[in-house]
Amino acid sequence: MISEDDLIARFFAPMAGQGGLGLRDDAALVAIAADREVVITTDALAAGVHFFADDAPGSIARKALRVNLSDLAAKGAKPAGFLLSLALPKDWREEWLTDFAAALAEDARDFACPLLGGDTIRSPGALFLSITALGTLPRGAMVHRDRARTGDCIYVSGTIGDAAAGLALRKGGAPEWTAALDLNAREFLLDRYLHPQPRLALAPILGAHASAAMDISDGLVGDLTKMSRVSGVSAAIEIGRIPFSDSARAALAIDPSLRDLLLTGGDDYEILCAVAASRSQAFEQDALAAGVIVTKIGEVTGGADSPTFLDPEGRPVSFARGSFSHF
Amino acid sequence: MISEDDLIARFFAPMAGQGGLGLRDDAALVAIAADREVVITTDALAAGVHFFADDAPGSIARKALRVNLSDLAAKGAKPAGFLLSLALPKDWREEWLTDFAAALAEDARDFACPLLGGDTIRSPGALFLSITALGTLPRGAMVHRDRARTGDCIYVSGTIGDAAAGLALRKGGAPEWTAALDLNAREFLLDRYLHPQPRLALAPILGAHASAAMDISDGLVGDLTKMSRVSGVSAAIEIGRIPFSDSARAALAIDPSLRDLLLTGGDDYEILCAVAASRSQAFEQDALAAGVIVTKIGEVTGGADSPTFLDPEGRPVSFARGSFSHF
Repeated sequence: MISEDDLIARFFAPMAGQGGLGLRDDAALVAIAADREVVITTDALAAGVHFFADDAPGSIARKALRVNLSDLAAKGAKPAGFLLSLALPKDWREEWLTDFAAALAEDARDFACPLLGGDTIRSPGALFLSITALGTLPRGAMVHRDRARTGDCIYVSGTIGDAAAGLALRKGGAPEWTAALDLNAREFLLDRYLHPQPRLALAPILGAHASAAMDISDGLVGDLTKMSRVSGVSAAIEIGRIPFSDSARAALAIDPSLRDLLLTGGDDYEILCAVAASRSQAFEQDALAAGVIVTKIGEVTGGADSPTFLDPEGRPVSFARGSFSHF
Repeated sequence: MISEDDLIARFFAPMAGQGGLGLRDDAALVAIAADREVVITTDALAAGVHFFADDAPGSIARKALRVNLSDLAAKGAKPAGFLLSLALPKDWREEWLTDFAAALAEDARDFACPLLGGDTIRSPGALFLSITALGTLPRGAMVHRDRARTGDCIYVSGTIGDAAAGLALRKGGAPEWTAALDLNAREFLLDRYLHPQPRLALAPILGAHASAAMDISDGLVGDLTKMSRVSGVSAAIEIGRIPFSDSARAALAIDPSLRDLLLTGGDDYEILCAVAASRSQAFEQDALAAGVIVTKIGEVTGGADSPTFLDPEGRPVSFARGSFSHF
């Protein structure tokens, strides 16, 4: 039987940075420059709830880290490191952990976010993991969720709904549209579900221009409702402006009723933000220069009502299920 | 069905500090004074592995937080806040969560360690929780595990082995000594297992005097072996000097063979540290002034052998099981 110390040395030490003290101490020291602040976030994932137990171990690892990095990006922060709690089921295999650790190490390197510490335990049941990620940003630069102001433009990054469609595909036994979709489109949507892309390139640009931001994890409709509510405002969205990928549009062409799923399903891990009208041009340009497409989808309005979603004919649309919940 | 937002507002918001942003944002901002550094640690606990599923919810909550605070104390750090990942089993009850949250809020207040953020999910199986705790300390003041030096005095705080005996009691169906022990002693040992006392009062004193320190979570024998190994030294311990509580001594009087369990069982959450001989008097005095009894149990020696434990006759003792492993 392998000890936890051996497990650390073999699988996890390679992804530790200097601050992690080689993962050999009780706690990790994190160097913070005097002119920067720390932000911290945590996300837990369980097999059978957030991912499928038979997903590729590398996909599970990447998603667990990236959903946390997505939160940091939304706050305007740069990753500084992460901690991993991993509960392995009784029947874990070395190949599984090798693949899991290799993918995590690759992401840790690519996103410049070293492993600072962690805890590996036996799970009495399914695989469970929790990642806590630390980020830093210039003092006072954090982008809060609750500061959207009436008149702000509302933007999203990337495209919306791909992951929700990908999840429907992953579940299998799915409706007609999944079979009618070509292979490339299916692969694209599935990849968007399995491998979110944290929008870290957008972080400093949000810090410079956004009034408020959050990442979209529980669906655009639900998350915009949350952002509006905590900001004490409402919003008007034109559905016709919401960016869909070619693959999502191909699926929509087969089954137009899929639209609600795309707008309310979870796992986008795109950025939703509010930007003052006077800054919107600079925001769009800076985002483009950073390689991220952002799209204006509507405006922040006064009042305390739930956001309004208007179809291309200007009629308000309501959704059967407002928000996706992982809980 | 209760939503995660309602869960946060009802159960967790009361224990959030200012930095936690009322737990309504994607990430928490942590204020770090310019002259201080951040240390961070994480510990995961699963029902049936680290605690009994039918332990009182308040005991589970306190232990989960305190084992992390114990790590911070060992590094010389002051708590700054914590994050909680909680996977609730399908059959969770509101009374359970009410008691869990009330105890956690009490500890968060008592230890000046507010909740900064977290994630609550459904567990596909048993209860699982992971806490990440942040601490701060003056720049350069962290007490490392790997800096014990030949000639240093070796100290432990409090008493050793109580929790291991308490766990044996908690397991039930136990050997003769448990039945022969009086009620007060049994309650004391059980409490030591269920409710570790993080030695935060010792943190600044370790920072001032200790060469190396760690908290004892996997048994004195195993943890001293770890500290010696990473420091590249050995150690000589006199078993007769190891502090046992009255209750542990009463159990030992009934069954002397219990000694090995006390020295190798886990869950002490006392501090093990190495202090230069020239500083040992000041260390003892400062610890006493802070209300913590520390006891010199031996010395750091040269060489790379495993630490030697000597019985009162000066004969080396070996242990069947070197270290307790939670993994």
